[in-house]
Amino acid sequence: MTLQIGAIGCGAIGQDHIRRISRVLSGARVVAVTDIDAQQARDVVARHDPAIEIMDSGRALIAAPQVQAVLVTSWGPSHEELVLEAIAHGKPVFCEKPLAVTAAGCMRIVQAEVAQGRRLVQVGFMRPYDAGYRALRHVIAAGEIGAPLMVHCAHRNPTVAGGYTTSMAITDTLIHELDVLRWLLDDDYASAQVVFPRKTRHALPHLNDPQIILLETVGGVRIDVEVFVNCRYGYDIQCEVVGETGIARLPEPAAVPMKRAASSCTPLLTDWKQRFIAAYDAELQAFIDGVRDRQLTGPSAWDGYAAAVAADACLLAQSSGAIEHMASAARPAFYQP
Amino acid sequence: MTLQIGAIGCGAIGQDHIRRISRVLSGARVVAVTDIDAQQARDVVARHDPAIEIMDSGRALIAAPQVQAVLVTSWGPSHEELVLEAIAHGKPVFCEKPLAVTAAGCMRIVQAEVAQGRRLVQVGFMRPYDAGYRALRHVIAAGEIGAPLMVHCAHRNPTVAGGYTTSMAITDTLIHELDVLRWLLDDDYASAQVVFPRKTRHALPHLNDPQIILLETVGGVRIDVEVFVNCRYGYDIQCEVVGETGIARLPEPAAVPMKRAASSCTPLLTDWKQRFIAAYDAELQAFIDGVRDRQLTGPSAWDGYAAAVAADACLLAQSSGAIEHMASAARPAFYQP
Amino acid sequence: MTLQIGAIGCGAIGQDHIRRISRVLSGARVVAVTDIDAQQARDVVARHDPAIEIMDSGRALIAAPQVQAVLVTSWGPSHEELVLEAIAHGKPVFCEKPLAVTAAGCMRIVQAEVAQGRRLVQVGFMRPYDAGYRALRHVIAAGEIGAPLMVHCAHRNPTVAGGYTTSMAITDTLIHELDVLRWLLDDDYASAQVVFPRKTRHALPHLNDPQIILLETVGGVRIDVEVFVNCRYGYDIQCEVVGETGIARLPEPAAVPMKRAASSCTPLLTDWKQRFIAAYDAELQAFIDGVRDRQLTGPSAWDGYAAAVAADACLLAQSSGAIEHMASAARPAFYQP
Amino acid sequence: MTLQIGAIGCGAIGQDHIRRISRVLSGARVVAVTDIDAQQARDVVARHDPAIEIMDSGRALIAAPQVQAVLVTSWGPSHEELVLEAIAHGKPVFCEKPLAVTAAGCMRIVQAEVAQGRRLVQVGFMRPYDAGYRALRHVIAAGEIGAPLMVHCAHRNPTVAGGYTTSMAITDTLIHELDVLRWLLDDDYASAQVVFPRKTRHALPHLNDPQIILLETVGGVRIDVEVFVNCRYGYDIQCEVVGETGIARLPEPAAVPMKRAASSCTPLLTDWKQRFIAAYDAELQAFIDGVRDRQLTGPSAWDGYAAAVAADACLLAQSSGAIEHMASAARPAFYQP
Repeated sequence: MTLQIGAIGCGAIGQDHIRRISRVLSGARVVAVTDIDAQQARDVVARHDPAIEIMDSGRALIAAPQVQAVLVTSWGPSHEELVLEAIAHGKPVFCEKPLAVTAAGCMRIVQAEVAQGRRLVQVGFMRPYDAGYRALRHVIAAGEIGAPLMVHCAHRNPTVAGGYTTSMAITDTLIHELDVLRWLLDDDYASAQVVFPRKTRHALPHLNDPQIILLETVGGVRIDVEVFVNCRYGYDIQCEVVGETGIARLPEPAAVPMKRAASSCTPLLTDWKQRFIAAYDAELQAFIDGVRDRQLTGPSAWDGYAAAVAADACLLAQSSGAIEHMASAARPAFYQP
Repeated sequence: MTLQIGAIGCGAIGQDHIRRISRVLSGARVVAVTDIDAQQARDVVARHDPAIEIMDSGRALIAAPQVQAVLVTSWGPSHEELVLEAIAHGKPVFCEKPLAVTAAGCMRIVQAEVAQGRRLVQVGFMRPYDAGYRALRHVIAAGEIGAPLMVHCAHRNPTVAGGYTTSMAITDTLIHELDVLRWLLDDDYASAQVVFPRKTRHALPHLNDPQIILLETVGGVRIDVEVFVNCRYGYDIQCEVVGETGIARLPEPAAVPMKRAASSCTPLLTDWKQRFIAAYDAELQAFIDGVRDRQLTGPSAWDGYAAAVAADACLLAQSSGAIEHMASAARPAFYQP
Repeated sequence: MTLQIGAIGCGAIGQDHIRRISRVLSGARVVAVTDIDAQQARDVVARHDPAIEIMDSGRALIAAPQVQAVLVTSWGPSHEELVLEAIAHGKPVFCEKPLAVTAAGCMRIVQAEVAQGRRLVQVGFMRPYDAGYRALRHVIAAGEIGAPLMVHCAHRNPTVAGGYTTSMAITDTLIHELDVLRWLLDDDYASAQVVFPRKTRHALPHLNDPQIILLETVGGVRIDVEVFVNCRYGYDIQCEVVGETGIARLPEPAAVPMKRAASSCTPLLTDWKQRFIAAYDAELQAFIDGVRDRQLTGPSAWDGYAAAVAADACLLAQSSGAIEHMASAARPAFYQP
Repeated sequence: MTLQIGAIGCGAIGQDHIRRISRVLSGARVVAVTDIDAQQARDVVARHDPAIEIMDSGRALIAAPQVQAVLVTSWGPSHEELVLEAIAHGKPVFCEKPLAVTAAGCMRIVQAEVAQGRRLVQVGFMRPYDAGYRALRHVIAAGEIGAPLMVHCAHRNPTVAGGYTTSMAITDTLIHELDVLRWLLDDDYASAQVVFPRKTRHALPHLNDPQIILLETVGGVRIDVEVFVNCRYGYDIQCEVVGETGIARLPEPAAVPMKRAASSCTPLLTDWKQRFIAAYDAELQAFIDGVRDRQLTGPSAWDGYAAAVAADACLLAQSSGAIEHMASAARPAFYQP
């Protein structure tokens, strides 16, 4: 009954997911791996289980009969082809973001999955599995603050690597808000605008930081997201939903409140990897359970497509300075909740 | 040595200021009042001090030799003329907002005061006297969060009277943020934009509520202010300043934290009059002390003018939907801090 | 109509109260002062008002016809005699704590006041005038947490002067809790016990610090008060009341919440003088208003007596290690609320 | 490599642990169960895995060769014998609290384990696996608040079943603090005292509720624990450690902060089962990992013994009203950290 998983890509994220499946999660094991760097694949085998088979390619791994489900953690440009291949074999696939590097690529996956007839794809958006966001969504759904009207968000990193660019603020950073806010509000985006405050002196010359992204949903909700990736003080994710009768906020991560040195203080995270560590476990456990129950419920190929369309509009808004309207395709009935 | 004040206007605000001077504050007393409704004036005398003289008009009151300083709390359209008259008599004047109903009117007062040669006017903006805003300004000035880059604000009322209009969200509500944020940041506004989220079902048909006002300062700071006057849950003023190395928030009003009925809760104010009650005392005490020390330091005629210019731009932005740039006159050296 | 006050004692506390009356409060002025150090008295006159008369003695000041009310801020051992003298002259008197240096002395004042027939004495316990304690009392009185069963308190100072002794933890520090908790609970003390945790290395050799005082009230409420006067981190006053259906806490002083340097932090006070600064204003304004309205309502001579009896029992418990029962005199009907 | 576990006792706790092993945790599976109620055992098999074998008795289960580790979740009086039997077979055993119903019984287990030569027993105290307590311990160990001097705790339940007695406040409720505080402080208890506040009207006639337990450690730390099991408002666990330079608190469980209905509020738990749900997972995963790594590190038989000794002293103190000193046996070198 243990689900047999094949993992494509043994880099940092791949290794982390393989460790999860082997040591933390219930009901699955890794039976095959592949990586363009064969040594990476051998290291994984050595670290976790000599019984894991090393495959020559992603295609071979997907085709292998002992592989019942596929994990795609290779580099982004390879995702589309691998996911389509898994669909062609009728094998469930967990694909790290991005689902594909273009909205058109995402749409091809959507069409293949719909044609295939049942949900096979889960995209690696982990925030809907975060206990805080889930509690926030529950509060909204229970009507405790009335119908949402506005959402105020911030996504702050203490610093970023030198290669981080202004557009990555959309594709690597904001992308998480683009995903989770659709899910939180059960709504789609209608337009995007980006404004640039005075740049912080702590950003490299090529990077415009911070920036504020203004989104409007089809339902008329106004969202503002501050993206500030050189905020220095910590890794801080804020989300406040203003409803017709009240407001609700994403809970802060639990930490020890102290009083010391003339200050009442609580430590903040500085490493993003710590922030959603439990959500990474939960998303993959949900995939395993979903495959075993033949009912995937997590972020779908359609969610991957919608995030890609929204990100494209935000990128356009960055350069145009104007309000950019989004023309998303209609959501197929296949993906209706 | 007690400062002798004449009060023009004995309506709700006038009565409240007269009560303050008579019962709460130090160093002043009311010696003369006037009101177009003579009964209101007689009531004040009866309530506070039979020695208070009732004057026939604002002009007469300003001219009376026993009146050393003037309090203008009559209706808005009368303010400009009365303040100019006080300046003409060289008498210090505390004028409730608005200083004048147009930016041009404010400018005439500015010019009269400059021509007269010393500061005589304090405008009734009380937020710079709020202990919370003062502490926030101190934190910024001390460099504890680095140079400000963004400010996120909210101004929420539980409900408003039926006569409240969409433009009053600017002239009666946002006006306080327009004043206090200039003072907080020591900066001026460059542009304004207004966006309208989906309207709450709790607003009357003629009122677009909530709205979000986006301001940019000359220094490049980006400000967003949510104005939501039917938020139902309470009277709530939020101000978060994001600096280059940290963030700081306006303190919440002190209240008793409780745990009861499956909830950890702290009461919120619902009546705006309670929120800045100490600031009203402080602004008028500062006026009294300033007059006695011959050095007024509170919100100036120039601040009244600047708020009026900014409000005009916001009103324009409400109807245009566009980003409206502001062309303020240059600040006279007279008003440099 | 301005109340004319004579002040006995021009040391630090005396000067501070004289400044309050002259510059901050409404409805009173200082007309006479005296001090055993004549220069101190002259300095006060020079600083505030040349019309203030310097008296040769407390007795002379009390007897002076222009003195309508008396402020006693001389050293403790002189209080009893001066308060009795003021009572003898039928003049209202605000006496800094202690009312008298012994419970017997307090009782003589109680008896004199009762004999005189109306309330003339207010003791300088300021905490019942603190807005936080008042809000907490209101919450209890409104039944929001049910009948009180337990109270958990802490009184922490960052450090104390070298002359501070173990018994002063009762007479100078705990004395404020002894006063305010009686008022908060509307109850009297029945017993006291003191336990000593391991001593902090930051206390001088002669001082046992921290200590925990356990009190039981006549009504069966159990109170624990941690007194820790070398806590290093700040001046921190905590009070949590546990009722039959909920709990309520004393509000923290308002301060600016920040996020910086990997910490979510709010500054704490370190100087005790800042903590109740508004309460000092309020207690003296209440005395002024009470005298003018001929109805004193603040901490009474009986409250001064009750605090003295409780402090005596705590001192005994410090040395005995046992549970010490208190035998307070019955409260005269004169002092029933 | 999967650890094969036999479970003795299929009541509520047993079923919950079996569910954890089967559906949530990694690296183990249940291969055998037994229960005095055979139907309970059959239900477990039906629910989880038809391959699970039903054994006639605990002794038979322990002896079965396929059983590599034992889970004891039968009723308390049977624990001692079963744990001793598992030790005799050299099989690791996870035993729900109490380890034995008397301190003497716990000591017999300690002696058997020491004689056997390696750690085989983990007691089901879950709080040391709670992320909040672990973070609190880390803060103390890192010296962030200096050496601990005092600990203020509360253990509050909204209500309890009718059969709950005054002594169960020690053996079922306080027992968790007795365990976790030893671990938190790395210290042992020296004495105990119990005081009873006025009883809440919401407790049944036979139950004295609330009560306050005062503990002193060998190292001189003073601990007070309020146990209040009819507090009505929620399930609330508080722990504040006061050190020589600062204080630290157990984090509150994460929940969604809201503002609604004139209140800033965060939901509280009411069901104790929710409070430490992740800790229950973590303690059992630690047992599984510890067995597989041949290095158990969780609460030991010695910890079970120490908690039993402390509980006995508290029970005595409940009835004596006096300070009861504890005479624990010396900790064998075997159990030194």
